[in-house]
Amino acid sequence: MHPFDIRKPDDAIRPALQQKIDNLTKPKGALGRLEELALQAGLVQQTLSPSLSHPHNLIFAADHGITAEGVSFSPREVTWQQCIHFATSTGGGVNYLCRQHGFTLRIIDVGVDYDFPPELPIIPRKVGRGTRNFLHEPAMTTDELDACIAHGAEAVRAVHEAGCNVVSLGEMGIGNTSASSIWMACLANIPLERCVGAGSGLSDEGVRRKLSVLSRALDHYTGDRTDPRSVMRHFGGYEMVAAVGAILQAAELGMLILVDGFILTNCMLAARALCPDVMAYAIFGHCGSESGHQLVLDALHARPLLNLGMRLGEGTGAICAYPIVDSAVRMINEMDTFEGGRVTKYFK
Amino acid sequence: MHPFDIRKPDDAIRPALQQKIDNLTKPKGALGRLEELALQAGLVQQTLSPSLSHPHNLIFAADHGITAEGVSFSPREVTWQQCIHFATSTGGGVNYLCRQHGFTLRIIDVGVDYDFPPELPIIPRKVGRGTRNFLHEPAMTTDELDACIAHGAEAVRAVHEAGCNVVSLGEMGIGNTSASSIWMACLANIPLERCVGAGSGLSDEGVRRKLSVLSRALDHYTGDRTDPRSVMRHFGGYEMVAAVGAILQAAELGMLILVDGFILTNCMLAARALCPDVMAYAIFGHCGSESGHQLVLDALHARPLLNLGMRLGEGTGAICAYPIVDSAVRMINEMDTFEGGRVTKYFK
Repeated sequence: MHPFDIRKPDDAIRPALQQKIDNLTKPKGALGRLEELALQAGLVQQTLSPSLSHPHNLIFAADHGITAEGVSFSPREVTWQQCIHFATSTGGGVNYLCRQHGFTLRIIDVGVDYDFPPELPIIPRKVGRGTRNFLHEPAMTTDELDACIAHGAEAVRAVHEAGCNVVSLGEMGIGNTSASSIWMACLANIPLERCVGAGSGLSDEGVRRKLSVLSRALDHYTGDRTDPRSVMRHFGGYEMVAAVGAILQAAELGMLILVDGFILTNCMLAARALCPDVMAYAIFGHCGSESGHQLVLDALHARPLLNLGMRLGEGTGAICAYPIVDSAVRMINEMDTFEGGRVTKYFK
Repeated sequence: MHPFDIRKPDDAIRPALQQKIDNLTKPKGALGRLEELALQAGLVQQTLSPSLSHPHNLIFAADHGITAEGVSFSPREVTWQQCIHFATSTGGGVNYLCRQHGFTLRIIDVGVDYDFPPELPIIPRKVGRGTRNFLHEPAMTTDELDACIAHGAEAVRAVHEAGCNVVSLGEMGIGNTSASSIWMACLANIPLERCVGAGSGLSDEGVRRKLSVLSRALDHYTGDRTDPRSVMRHFGGYEMVAAVGAILQAAELGMLILVDGFILTNCMLAARALCPDVMAYAIFGHCGSESGHQLVLDALHARPLLNLGMRLGEGTGAICAYPIVDSAVRMINEMDTFEGGRVTKYFK
């Protein structure tokens, strides 16, 4: 299966964490999700004083063979154009949000169909020039699958070594809502038509065409629909498998994982299928407007922090949720306790 | 009625704003609520480059005569204790959140039943030492009502003169969920039993007792339930009326108004009843867990940015939503446009 040693955080510290949270100067539970996040961060980091340091946003990028079937509104070249845009501009959506919230951005090319100039800050880990067209053949080989997982894991180890303990994962890959919809249909056992949406802007007719293509592809698939490695290998994409590797590695290292939109939620679904304990490390940032996102969140019993109708990907939804996680960690570190003695302990 | 000259922002600039937003390097609409907030900020400020400057959180504080009826879980002295806590500590809930997001905190005493040491940074605008018990008599006189509105407006003018163009409003007043529930029942015409909740921690039996007291009070009320001034005067509290004055003044000055939890949403309900155009200036930060909050938001057709199960008040929910508003304003100012020419304009 996967080579990661992932364990649920030790629960022994939970009562002390809960006591610390309950003793802050507020009615018990009055800071709602902030209290839950503080508890989660304390469990993951095994400390009563969790902290967030050197947040990074990793964008895994690759192309998809299925785009040959006209399933995407945007042309394939947008993948490499956007990678260059993120790498060279300060004004992409993800760029300004990273700047606002103190994230370092790293872009990892695991399979874009373009030769990036080597001087660009794009980490070269190309496994291929886009996956194969999964309407006709498996998107990737087993070796490619394992290479993608390894590249994702390596990217996380690198930022961890740079002092990062909270990582947001994003993606760039025209065609990847198609792959995600099939992952979801298989791994969450949801009818495909409920998993397929407009991606970056398909018309209703375009969505029908996309569903038709994906239905045929799924009908041709003879593998096990409950086997995450088989589903990932057959339908791709490279960037999504890399994100799964990143999730597994981050969980092994005890990092907090900020999960972005539709694509990354499906990567979390696959990671959970490989190793259920990854869920303890995940914070779901955002429910986007892509059809199906709420359903896959429900399948994961995940309650995202934000619901702002965003559907940009790139990690943007997760980054927007970061200040809430930061508020949670600050709460447990910076709020007064009743022991301070200046406020009647009037709360239950 | 009210002396404020409040107008809906001029819509002439709307097409240019929308065009600027649509020309940013993202699929049209892909940043969801951020795009709506950027449009709102541009309209309110009548500029294509809106900005947020010197955010302030104003906490209006006062006591409530109705607490004599045992409607609150917390004892009355918590009002003054918390005011002193906010004014002297760095570790109250509102303190650390203000620090995190760059807000200046001001506390305005419009009717706390306590003599604060004058050296404390609490702005003294006491109208009385708590309202009267509205089970037996009107909570305040008409003169007191007008004084509260004037104090709220003055507090906003002061921060506006200090360069603030975005203001969050909060409250501290044991008993004020009781007053709010009655405002809501009257002004949104919702059955009282759906407006009454647990406040800072009542048991189910406590909630039943609270409802019984408030039902009797409302039965005794012979005034017009649709007249906001009559409802505000009869049921108080001073701090809530001051917040209404603050809302009206902020709208007149063209400021963005961050609306916090249950109490402040009811203040917005009253302000809208006085002047429907205030809604153009309001950003609803948060849906809290107080029973009834979602209903009053629905009555206002308001969609809050966050839903984190918070119920602390003090402005904390609104402040937590601030980075999202900041993201919206940064988006319109910092994102690249397609004119930059490096990305195919592949979006609808």
